[in-house]
Parts: sequence; C-alpha cells; structure tokens
Amino acid sequence: MKKLESILKKIESIELDKKSMKLAEKRQNELTKPKKSLGILEDISIQVAGITGDPQPYIRDKSIIVMAGDHGVVEEGVTAYPQEVTAQMVNSFLNGYAAINVFSRHTSTDVVVVDMGIASNMDYSVLIDKKIGYGTKNISKGPAMTRKDAIKAIESGIEVFEEVYAGKKIDIVGTGDMGIGNTTPSSAIISVISNCDPRLTTGRGSGIDDLSLKKKIDVIDKAININKPFKDPIDILAKLGGFEIGGIVGVILASVSHRVPVVIDGFISGAAAAIAIELDRKIKDFMIASHKSLEIGHGVMLDYYGLKPILNLDMRLGEGTGAVLAMSLIELSCRVLNEMKTFDEAGVSDRI
Amino acid sequence: MKKLESILKKIESIELDKKSMKLAEKRQNELTKPKKSLGILEDISIQVAGITGDPQPYIRDKSIIVMAGDHGVVEEGVTAYPQEVTAQMVNSFLNGYAAINVFSRHTSTDVVVVDMGIASNMDYSVLIDKKIGYGTKNISKGPAMTRKDAIKAIESGIEVFEEVYAGKKIDIVGTGDMGIGNTTPSSAIISVISNCDPRLTTGRGSGIDDLSLKKKIDVIDKAININKPFKDPIDILAKLGGFEIGGIVGVILASVSHRVPVVIDGFISGAAAAIAIELDRKIKDFMIASHKSLEIGHGVMLDYYGLKPILNLDMRLGEGTGAVLAMSLIELSCRVLNEMKTFDEAGVSDRI
Repeated sequence: MKKLESILKKIESIELDKKSMKLAEKRQNELTKPKKSLGILEDISIQVAGITGDPQPYIRDKSIIVMAGDHGVVEEGVTAYPQEVTAQMVNSFLNGYAAINVFSRHTSTDVVVVDMGIASNMDYSVLIDKKIGYGTKNISKGPAMTRKDAIKAIESGIEVFEEVYAGKKIDIVGTGDMGIGNTTPSSAIISVISNCDPRLTTGRGSGIDDLSLKKKIDVIDKAININKPFKDPIDILAKLGGFEIGGIVGVILASVSHRVPVVIDGFISGAAAAIAIELDRKIKDFMIASHKSLEIGHGVMLDYYGLKPILNLDMRLGEGTGAVLAMSLIELSCRVLNEMKTFDEAGVSDRI
Repeated sequence: MKKLESILKKIESIELDKKSMKLAEKRQNELTKPKKSLGILEDISIQVAGITGDPQPYIRDKSIIVMAGDHGVVEEGVTAYPQEVTAQMVNSFLNGYAAINVFSRHTSTDVVVVDMGIASNMDYSVLIDKKIGYGTKNISKGPAMTRKDAIKAIESGIEVFEEVYAGKKIDIVGTGDMGIGNTTPSSAIISVISNCDPRLTTGRGSGIDDLSLKKKIDVIDKAININKPFKDPIDILAKLGGFEIGGIVGVILASVSHRVPVVIDGFISGAAAAIAIELDRKIKDFMIASHKSLEIGHGVMLDYYGLKPILNLDMRLGEGTGAVLAMSLIELSCRVLNEMKTFDEAGVSDRI
C-alpha cells in the first residue's frame, strides 16, 4: 500500500509543462509545411513535450510491457479459446512468433512480458515473475481477488516499470495484455465506471457466437450485482478485475510519475487506464490512446474520457499491437520537431 | 502515345491473382490470433498477395516518387503561398529537410524526386528531369496543357517508374506531389469525374481564407465551363490538370503493369488515381489508399470509388507523407503473413 500511496502523492505534484508545449507548438508552426497540416501528429508532439517537459523531445527507446493473467470467469463459457492458450501465447511471445513480436520488430520496440497471474507454471528465464495467483476467482460468484491482491497487482506493475526503467532508458512505454477471458472483466469495469449498461460495453472478444455473447452479458450483470464494486477504483479492480489489468494500472502510474509518455493499447488496457484515471484524473493528460478496438466497450471508454485514438484499423487483438504501432507514430511526430527545418532555416518563402 | 497505348494494353491482360489471395487468407486465418483480429492489415496483406501473385509476399524495398510541377492558375490568387515555394520545397526534399524526408527516414523508404514542370531552372544532379514546361497555363482561361503534353506527362511518369524499377528492386511504390496551387486542378478533376459541384470538392489547400476559397471555387467553375473537359480522361488531364498529376498517373499505370502495389497519398495523388481508374477501372484493385486528407474533395474521390483509406490522421500536407506511413503498415501486414506462426506451428490450442 505504501508504494501505491507514495506514487499517487508524487503524481499529485506533476503537471503538463505548458511552457514546453507552447515552444513545441511554436516550432510546429514554423516548420516548412502549412500550419496544422500534419494533423494529429502535431498535437501528439506537443503533448509529448508537455509530458516530458522537453520542447523538442526525442523518442529513441520504446518498450511494450505485456501483462498476462488468467480469469476464473472462463468456467462460465464466455470465451472462444480454452484457458491454456494464455500460457501458450505467452510462450509464443517469448519465442518471437506472435503478432506482438512481428509488430515490435517492425518498429524496433523492446518487448517485456510479465506473468501477473497465469494459471500454469511458467519458465522464468526470460519471463518476469510477478505471479499473484493461478488466475483470478470467478467474478460471477464473488470478488476476482482480495483488495490486498489488487493493490499488490498495481504495485507489481509499478515495480516492473521501475525495474525496466532502471535497466535502460525508456523514452516511451506501451501497455499490452494477454489473458483468455479478459474482455469480460474489462467490460464489467467499463460498465461500472461509465455507468453504462453491459449490453453497450460487451462484445465478442476473440470471437464468440450470439448465444455466448448473451451468456457473457448475463455473467457481467451478475458480477456487478453480486459484488457491488462501488467503493473506489481499487474496489472495482479487486471485485471485477484481472491481475494483468492491475499490473497495467501500475505501469501507467509509474510512467506518469517519471514523466514518460504511456501509450494505451486497446480494450483491456483501456479498462486499466480507466481505473488509473479514476485514481487521479490528471493521469489522462499523460496517456495517449493508440487505437480504437472493434470491441464495443472500448469506444465507450474513449468517449467517456474524451480520448482521441490515433489509429482505427479495425483491430481487436490486444497484446499491445495497437500501442506498438502508435508508439512508432509518436516517435515520428517528435522526429518532425527535431529534423524538419523551419521556413527561415530552409530558406523557403512563407505565406503570401 | 505508343508507350501509353501499350501499357494500357498490357494492363488489360492483368488480373488480381485469386489463388494467391485465397492462400493468403487461409494463412491469416491459421495464424495464432482470433480470425480477422488484425482488421484492415489482414485485408491489405490479402490484396498484396493478389497484386503480386505471391501468397506470402514480402515487402522490403519501398520507394516514394514525388512529382513536382507549377500551375498557371496561381495568378488568380487561389493559394496561400507564392509559386517559388514549389522549387524551394523541392530543394528542401533534395537536402533532406522536409516532412517527406523525415517520414521516409523513419520508415526506411527511398525518396525519388522528379521535376515534371517546375516554373524555375533546377539543378539536376539528384533531381530527375522530366520537365514538360515552366508550369501549366491558367485553367480559368483555357487548357492547362495540350493533349500531347498530357500524354507526355503520363509517359514521363511511366519512364520514371521504369527507370527506378530497372535500377533496383521495388516491392511497393508510393505517389507524392509538390506544386503550389495544385489543389485547384485536383478539385476541378474530381468535380468533373464524380460529377460533383466544386463547392463539395474544393477546400482550403495549404490554408486560404474564406474570401480566397470563394474565389477558388469560382475559378474552378470557370475552368470547367470554359474548357468542357468531357471527352475522355486524357482530355480532363490536359484541360484541368498539372504536369505532376500526369506524372503520377504514369507511375500508377507502370506499377500496375509490373504487379507492384501502388500506394496513393492524399488529394493530389487521388486526382491522378481517379484519372488512372477512368483509363481502366481494373486499376482500382491494384492501388491502396493510404489516408484520408482533410481536403474535402479527397473524401468525395474515396467515396466515389469505394476506396477505404488505411489512416485518418487529419493530415493535409501531400509530398507523399500519407503514402509513406501506409507503406510501412503494408510492409508490416506482409511480415505478419511471413513471420507469425500458425496454431499448429506454435503448438497453441485453437478454438474450443
């Protein structure tokens, strides 16, 4: 609890650096292009200037932290794939065979994979071990985890970021997830936070049919009614969440505390981001929404907080794939600030 | 004329390779991810398989061909920047200072710059010389160029592609433009082709005010009424077009004839793409729309042909910036086909 309290206290004292933002905006307006003609990329470079406190930020080292965990609620038949796929896919991440690996190689991004609570014994030679349990409990019957474990999950995420950050420079970090069944807790979390009916926040996850979708919505209704997770954001995480969702909350808090831009992947990361924002509204200013997932609850979350995603590629894979693509664009937006010349510098005539 | 006729004849005999597309789709469905979970990126990899005739296409070498030209219509006061900026920006491209250079360095894309008709004398040590004239004529008073020069512009674009293609491997090519005033001919071209009022196809270009926008629309109305460019696509190009627009048409035709995917940048490239499609409807299947420009006529063009752009970043710069970003995503979509493992290969359990 001490680690979480102290990081929230630290975040209280942090603000976007308005002076750096003004300078970045000024430079964007002087570069050899019509004003605002790079659209969202200009806005992002200005936000990164504000987050980092550097009017010409340079992003070199990019890391994606993929948090994995299992979910007791899969016993209700809410998923298209069996639970063992979580561990199998994590092994695939470690071997470099999965989508997140291809995306990360393509964009020169380091992949960090963490066991937050996989329901199998894993090999920790490369995988980071922060296992809190062998999957959460079935949320349709009671809380996913104790309040103590929810805090431990967040603090483990903080530790992961701190360890990676201490070991090498990180200029930007993305969040990713792996966990069969984790759209169910995510829909439940978004429903409670945005006070929105589960019918509007629940989608087909990795591809369930109509019957399973109906079952999934019933399960989420039941989870909310049984658990009454209304006390505070930690209560929501403990009663409805996943260990990997808690871990992502921790990564977000730690990155904000270090003024490192944090890029939110899709729906699962979005649920974690919502919990982080509820812990301190200001955190929203320090995060960048990477893409809009096809999973309907993600759109609800983005709209609820007024977050504008960079990409809209009809993706719904998770793993951090959206975050990795966005990080490369954010890197580019900062390269524009550093590498393009101004009208003056390039000897190009300005507006008539 | 012979070069244009023979390439159109060659294109007549080319079709998307349906067998390669089926194989690519089959593999996408077997890779360790929920079916269709990579959204547009899956569709694109399948299209590239069809274009190239390779069920597992690999994109390594990417080139952006930036065509530059000037426009007599600038004397009507339809632009925010003076005409000399075309030559100045082209020099900036050659020095590596402009947005297209930063975008291309970021994505390991080769930049090829061509003088199709800049209204200044240029240094051709690096710049490719295909100059047809010192800018087009003022389209509000008569045709932009002769029919012969329109064909020459297209054939010059074909030559540029052929020369670059002969010199090195090109797995994918993007089109870019530079030309102060070139949104005016582009709006006129899209208006005529889509039979759409210039009020709906004309935007603020590099940033003109309300009064200039009204003037610009009047100029386009006049250009269409005076020139009556209704004979065929070459007639539209000759009467309303630009030398760089003709050059881009040529690049598109040549790339299709070699089964090289061609990525269309924004509005100016979109106007060229429209002319190419009007020359042979099938060409549409071989092109990929990179992004949707903020320039309103671009949306009209994309909707008219049912082209779905990959990105929507509120950009409106041109130069090929959108095409370069999309090419990197297309490269990634093919890396997914080649580098991800299937459920079988990775030993991951498939659906329940």
